[in-house]
Amino acid sequence: MPYRAPVSDILFAMQHAAGLPQVIEAAGTGDLDADFVASIVEEAGKFATDRIAPSNRVGDQNGAKLGPDGVKTAPGWGALYGEWIAGGWNGVAAAPEFGGMGLPVLVQSACNEMWSSANMAFSLCPLLTAGAVEAVTAHGSDALKQTFLHKMVSGEWTGTMNLTEPQAGSDLNAVRARAERAGDGTYRIFGQKIFITYGDHDMTDNIVHLVLARLPDAPPGTRGISLFLVPKFLVNDDGSLGARNDARVHSIEHKMGIHASPTCTMVFGDHDGAVGYLVGQENRGLACMFTMMNNARLGVGLQGVALAEAAYQHALAYASERRQGRAPGETGEGMSAIVKHGDVRRMLATMKGLTQAARAICYLVAASLDLAHNAKDDVTKKAMNERASLLTPVAKAFSTDIGSQVAALGVQVHGGMGFIEETGAAQFMRDAKIAEIYEGTNGIQAIDLVQRKLPLSGGDCVRAEIADMRNTLGQLRASNEPGFGKTAARLTEAVDSLDRATQFLLRPGVDQDTMQSAATSYLRLFGLARGGVSLAGAALSAKDDPSRPERIALARFFAENLAVASGGLETMAIEGAESLACPDLLGA
Amino acid sequence: MPYRAPVSDILFAMQHAAGLPQVIEAAGTGDLDADFVASIVEEAGKFATDRIAPSNRVGDQNGAKLGPDGVKTAPGWGALYGEWIAGGWNGVAAAPEFGGMGLPVLVQSACNEMWSSANMAFSLCPLLTAGAVEAVTAHGSDALKQTFLHKMVSGEWTGTMNLTEPQAGSDLNAVRARAERAGDGTYRIFGQKIFITYGDHDMTDNIVHLVLARLPDAPPGTRGISLFLVPKFLVNDDGSLGARNDARVHSIEHKMGIHASPTCTMVFGDHDGAVGYLVGQENRGLACMFTMMNNARLGVGLQGVALAEAAYQHALAYASERRQGRAPGETGEGMSAIVKHGDVRRMLATMKGLTQAARAICYLVAASLDLAHNAKDDVTKKAMNERASLLTPVAKAFSTDIGSQVAALGVQVHGGMGFIEETGAAQFMRDAKIAEIYEGTNGIQAIDLVQRKLPLSGGDCVRAEIADMRNTLGQLRASNEPGFGKTAARLTEAVDSLDRATQFLLRPGVDQDTMQSAATSYLRLFGLARGGVSLAGAALSAKDDPSRPERIALARFFAENLAVASGGLETMAIEGAESLACPDLLGA
Repeated sequence: MPYRAPVSDILFAMQHAAGLPQVIEAAGTGDLDADFVASIVEEAGKFATDRIAPSNRVGDQNGAKLGPDGVKTAPGWGALYGEWIAGGWNGVAAAPEFGGMGLPVLVQSACNEMWSSANMAFSLCPLLTAGAVEAVTAHGSDALKQTFLHKMVSGEWTGTMNLTEPQAGSDLNAVRARAERAGDGTYRIFGQKIFITYGDHDMTDNIVHLVLARLPDAPPGTRGISLFLVPKFLVNDDGSLGARNDARVHSIEHKMGIHASPTCTMVFGDHDGAVGYLVGQENRGLACMFTMMNNARLGVGLQGVALAEAAYQHALAYASERRQGRAPGETGEGMSAIVKHGDVRRMLATMKGLTQAARAICYLVAASLDLAHNAKDDVTKKAMNERASLLTPVAKAFSTDIGSQVAALGVQVHGGMGFIEETGAAQFMRDAKIAEIYEGTNGIQAIDLVQRKLPLSGGDCVRAEIADMRNTLGQLRASNEPGFGKTAARLTEAVDSLDRATQFLLRPGVDQDTMQSAATSYLRLFGLARGGVSLAGAALSAKDDPSRPERIALARFFAENLAVASGGLETMAIEGAESLACPDLLGA
Repeated sequence: MPYRAPVSDILFAMQHAAGLPQVIEAAGTGDLDADFVASIVEEAGKFATDRIAPSNRVGDQNGAKLGPDGVKTAPGWGALYGEWIAGGWNGVAAAPEFGGMGLPVLVQSACNEMWSSANMAFSLCPLLTAGAVEAVTAHGSDALKQTFLHKMVSGEWTGTMNLTEPQAGSDLNAVRARAERAGDGTYRIFGQKIFITYGDHDMTDNIVHLVLARLPDAPPGTRGISLFLVPKFLVNDDGSLGARNDARVHSIEHKMGIHASPTCTMVFGDHDGAVGYLVGQENRGLACMFTMMNNARLGVGLQGVALAEAAYQHALAYASERRQGRAPGETGEGMSAIVKHGDVRRMLATMKGLTQAARAICYLVAASLDLAHNAKDDVTKKAMNERASLLTPVAKAFSTDIGSQVAALGVQVHGGMGFIEETGAAQFMRDAKIAEIYEGTNGIQAIDLVQRKLPLSGGDCVRAEIADMRNTLGQLRASNEPGFGKTAARLTEAVDSLDRATQFLLRPGVDQDTMQSAATSYLRLFGLARGGVSLAGAALSAKDDPSRPERIALARFFAENLAVASGGLETMAIEGAESLACPDLLGA
């Protein structure tokens, strides 16, 4: 079944899990109201469903190809990208000053999710561009902004992130690409970068590379990395395209998934060096890059949600049509739709619950960024920024872990047909895997959560998050609504587990090995607790929503069947390190 | 890194987890001793490592192709298959009467594991042949046996299983292929079968299809299905090949994995009907097919172990070489091998623990089959047959679930390189998925466990299994060896959870919906408990083995980090059905 943007689920999560009303209120502009947001989400959903989704399988089957003139994208992608620009979809959250719509990150996130569901490989191009726009907006000189931002916001030019080198993947200390001062304020860049998404393509006239490199006199490590803007074609003073820069694609990768997203090895400075323009200050490139990376981490988390949603829709449609066997209690002739079988139903409910929990967490991050951006006071700004920081690794890693889990369950629901590529279920699973890896592997997200985010404000940030969950659970208990079953009890156990594991990891003097061993279990526990509470809280608060019985049923299923993993995860997080440290464990 | 058969791990599991000494004693033949078994396993491992493994990537990249003359296998596969036959590997467990080696199923299982690790797509062909050999041996007439078995045992001809039709996947009631009596004792077969592994290929002169079909006067449902032997080429009285039978491959599937294993749509009876020979009695085909299917289920479980082992070796080798960042406590210059990082170590230990636990369970099934086969008394025979029956769905589903889980972790350990097909990690993940689906989906295995296997001997069979686990745990507690840490306590909790969930599912009058909703969680719980206890028991019993410290460390890690999921699984199994049954759960 082709993907259909789940607009009502998305608006529900924005409204009841992420707090759209507060985001709108904080924005404080007259034009932004709930109806306008709904119309944007609806239109974006239409574009995703009608225009983007049909390109997904074409892209998977044809992939991107490297020819003598560079990368050729899949058939029809250039035209689709033209429609994308024409529709004005490239600059949803970008500054109006440069042609963007200036809408909240929450709205952008809802759009990103739908576009990624429709075609992850396609949506990566605008996602990378948005990150580049954000970095140049935050750190670029006025001249750079004037020359590049309008066309990057419109989508006429696209952007890339050039961090990785063969020896420098997760560890950017090891970056070796070098930059030389040209004497005229510009720089010359030399070196090779790998895994560059849309490093080359034929959908636009120009590509704007953001490249990490070292100056000759730079200190070692990440304190000696600078960020440069390196366009594929230089830009003349009148804005027209000038000479071809000394930057080219060398090869593209043959990957398990996202076949149509060209993953390029880029070579800078084959000849005299690629002309580069400094973004921000010399040797402070990492800070600029982090601007892009945080944006990108939320975006990748949303890819997890997106593929989970697409896989769920696909599996539910198949399970509603495919008939095998007779389900218990079924009367009448013939075989039952497999959705009636308890085990298939359990898979589908697990898919749905994990998807919606991850969506709630991602949207919460987006809303926190909006609330921080528009905060009237420093205390709120700091609290909301810290909340977004705390939840970003959870949004990235939990969502992409469940993205793979849900996509694999989607294949399973299809039975033998799921393994056949024509069915489409396998593509979601193949595509989803990369989201657990790029933009910082999920292991690195977990370590970031434990080592950098838990200590924010001396632990008060995470304690406030736990208090927020307990507050929701208090309301849930007070409501006494029977439809919730044991939801409050099970989620209280989960939050208790999270609380104890948090206290354990915040102990003074806890060693790094213990933290790193615990990190992944702790992050999963965090995601289950936060996601479960958000589902329950949203269901509770949506008093007049016609979908409320369904929301309550899902919150309950999640609490009673998925959040119950929390106890085991707590034990792993608190006690797991010792057995893991045994030197005999992995053999000689 | 290329796969290397883990002969010492395999012999350890045979000896200490599966009870090879008892298997040898029960066989009671003078030739079979531990040294002989070790030499067979070593030689089979050499063949897997040196001859089969190098064909794995060639097969993945080239796949099987359908041409005008039928299916062409990947380059070099015909020659490899020739070596396979020449080495005598096709008939390890087959009856000596037909040229087999007559070795225990346990030895065959060890070999199957290694061959599947080396190349799952290749090893499927002999696996299917072995199933066909078993069915014909058990149910075929003497004439059929004489005509076909020698060449099938040698591997000169291969075998297939033709069950599935488009409308009849998990539910064989719906089989429509029809058979007509030809009047001369033979039959004519008409119909289409899908998903036929090695339904056609160019590695042998003949292929022996076992086909389920209905006679015109057959009762409806599975009581009206008969099994027929349908050779690709008819066989003359002198054993030479005769006319081409009216059976052909129509198309092959484009799959996510096992590209080189041709998955065929077969057409029988385009013209006058394919000549078929009845196997067993008319309308009793399902019983014959089950002979093949039980064999195949253990074989598929071993594929899960096999891919997990291969993925683990691959990931461990990469993590030992790849350097990124500095691990806590590391001194000296430069970056640390990523195996030193806690989170990577946790992934590798999880991979290793799950692999070895699944191996222990599969080998236990094999040993139980051997003990049943050679039992001196009916009580032992029944007990061992029932034990094998009970554990077969666990061996199939737990092992293949962890096969996918471990292969996905293997990709994750590789980081970005894992997503690149050249690395080889992705192939394990793509190949592994099908094992969760075919030979009865893992959901169906779980339902089989709960609905058909728990009631064996009125529940005494499963109670004996739990008592066996408690017995091992008693020995573990009595040993007081400090290296085990909290192993005994954590595994006791797991077995307690299993015990309570078992009692819950054995209650009189428990309804089918509850059982089916609980099934998958229960099976996972069973696998964790049985696997964890087997690892601990084997480590405990191997007093003089030089690898003992490593075995103890792994058993401890498993108990303290993986078996701790049991409590949550128990809750899901016992309480999960109610929330799952809510009609609002999956929406309108």
